[in-house]
Amino acid sequence: MRYGIIGAGAIGGYYGSKLAYSGQEVHFLSHSDYQFVKERGMQVDSCDGSFHLDHVNVYQYSKDMPKCDVVVVGLKTTNNHLLPELLPPLLTEQTVVLLIQNGIGVEADVQKMFPNLQLVAGLAFICSAKTEPGHVNHQCYGSINLGNYSCKDEARFQAILEDFRNAGVQAASVPYEEARWKKAVWNMPFNGMTVALNTQTDLLLKNPATRQLIRDLMMEVIEAANHLGVKGLDASFADKMIETTDAMTPYSPSMKLDYDFHRPMEIQYIYSRPIEIACKAGYRMRKLEMLEAELKFIQNSLQG
Amino acid sequence: MRYGIIGAGAIGGYYGSKLAYSGQEVHFLSHSDYQFVKERGMQVDSCDGSFHLDHVNVYQYSKDMPKCDVVVVGLKTTNNHLLPELLPPLLTEQTVVLLIQNGIGVEADVQKMFPNLQLVAGLAFICSAKTEPGHVNHQCYGSINLGNYSCKDEARFQAILEDFRNAGVQAASVPYEEARWKKAVWNMPFNGMTVALNTQTDLLLKNPATRQLIRDLMMEVIEAANHLGVKGLDASFADKMIETTDAMTPYSPSMKLDYDFHRPMEIQYIYSRPIEIACKAGYRMRKLEMLEAELKFIQNSLQG
Repeated sequence: MRYGIIGAGAIGGYYGSKLAYSGQEVHFLSHSDYQFVKERGMQVDSCDGSFHLDHVNVYQYSKDMPKCDVVVVGLKTTNNHLLPELLPPLLTEQTVVLLIQNGIGVEADVQKMFPNLQLVAGLAFICSAKTEPGHVNHQCYGSINLGNYSCKDEARFQAILEDFRNAGVQAASVPYEEARWKKAVWNMPFNGMTVALNTQTDLLLKNPATRQLIRDLMMEVIEAANHLGVKGLDASFADKMIETTDAMTPYSPSMKLDYDFHRPMEIQYIYSRPIEIACKAGYRMRKLEMLEAELKFIQNSLQG
Repeated sequence: MRYGIIGAGAIGGYYGSKLAYSGQEVHFLSHSDYQFVKERGMQVDSCDGSFHLDHVNVYQYSKDMPKCDVVVVGLKTTNNHLLPELLPPLLTEQTVVLLIQNGIGVEADVQKMFPNLQLVAGLAFICSAKTEPGHVNHQCYGSINLGNYSCKDEARFQAILEDFRNAGVQAASVPYEEARWKKAVWNMPFNGMTVALNTQTDLLLKNPATRQLIRDLMMEVIEAANHLGVKGLDASFADKMIETTDAMTPYSPSMKLDYDFHRPMEIQYIYSRPIEIACKAGYRMRKLEMLEAELKFIQNSLQG
């Protein structure tokens, strides 16, 4: 299959390079690093073994790219307004688009832009960063869960899983809604609270007041999921997430990095949409509403 | 009547000096400014007319002070653990103690320390600050509401009101619970949020997300008061408080000043106690619980 990668950063750059290194035909869209990658290729420094791609199919504009069987979107959701311009040149009627993005409601909104598009959600469990042009630093983890949102071609969905596995990436199929909401149980408390209190995961869990708050926030996400009929989430899952985070080294979630580097934060899909969806289903995530308001204020201060 | 003033700062220094300037016998406890005030008196720069007290009855230790008819406590509640040591030398069986302090539950806790003491709550509406030793700067407002908590001597309660009025201070008698909770409608949202977002009142109200949040927080205080059977608070009171604050110049509430100057914040009486009292009455102030947790984290970071 022919792969297109939109956004060759920490996520798209890593998974795209893994696929290319395993022998797949991969085409990267890279607006900012185009010249560098064209001349010098891509470097992946990885805990699983580093490697270099000497010759990379890289493009500055998506209109120059070929039609693809699978398109991986590794953009921040704050750039999703660009998709109506970026995606069409790569699409056939059979193309599957894999959105490796944060939050809740992303697939629904992209589906509105492209009503017939076959969409798959990608949930990446990875610590990686683009440290320089054409240079991805993969520190740890790296597995990906795929949740089928609207892909009718089951064979192709399975083929994507196979390609990831052949590229050395642990990949599994998971129920779409359950997977998105499970990730939100971690994402909603930690992304925003590390920004609101300008701190890292470990200190939030060390202070008894914020440790309890993190658990309260997790329970709001679990309650919301239950109101929406999503299976598999209860209080024990919150306890498990806290234990897992206790065992991690001090960590800055993606929103904290966006804040530190004065990039726009993904408030819309990590907070506003799930809060709105839960509210329509009759459940108010009250503390997360407060966190959303604080983040909007902080975002505004950064821009102002 | 003979007045004792515990804490000659922005509050005790102002009201005590007004009483002294009007001819009352006033005795000040001032640990840090004792030597300065003894030698040079007190200066009050005031929007209502500045004045100087040349000779001030000032003491470094409360054990050296005379018995008083009325004791005004102008300490921060974070120092209330000192009261069992500071108050007794000034008390007779008839003494009335006026607590001009922030928050909910202060009188109940002081009453536990002194079961037979006659307590009155003082709610000051004033912008003042102690800018230097023996120097109070009174910028604007200045009225005080007295709420009778446990003063059985109605004649003395009225006499205190008269003395304040004769000293040029607008003073009124208000129902205790209603007055404390009405003040909390403003105090609980603005004190904490200006610290949590490191900002001032005007910017919180300018941003639509935090403007709505401030109103949500006010409504939590009003709901709590209603659960406790306190009269006179409804949604229109929240709207009025927001309008009043819109009309104010950008303002840093007392907790924000404590934060800015790295002093302990009055989290206990402005947040923890009212949250606890409302919870016992069956109402969870969910967003204010979150604010309390954030403030505890911030307090801890400042100390650490």
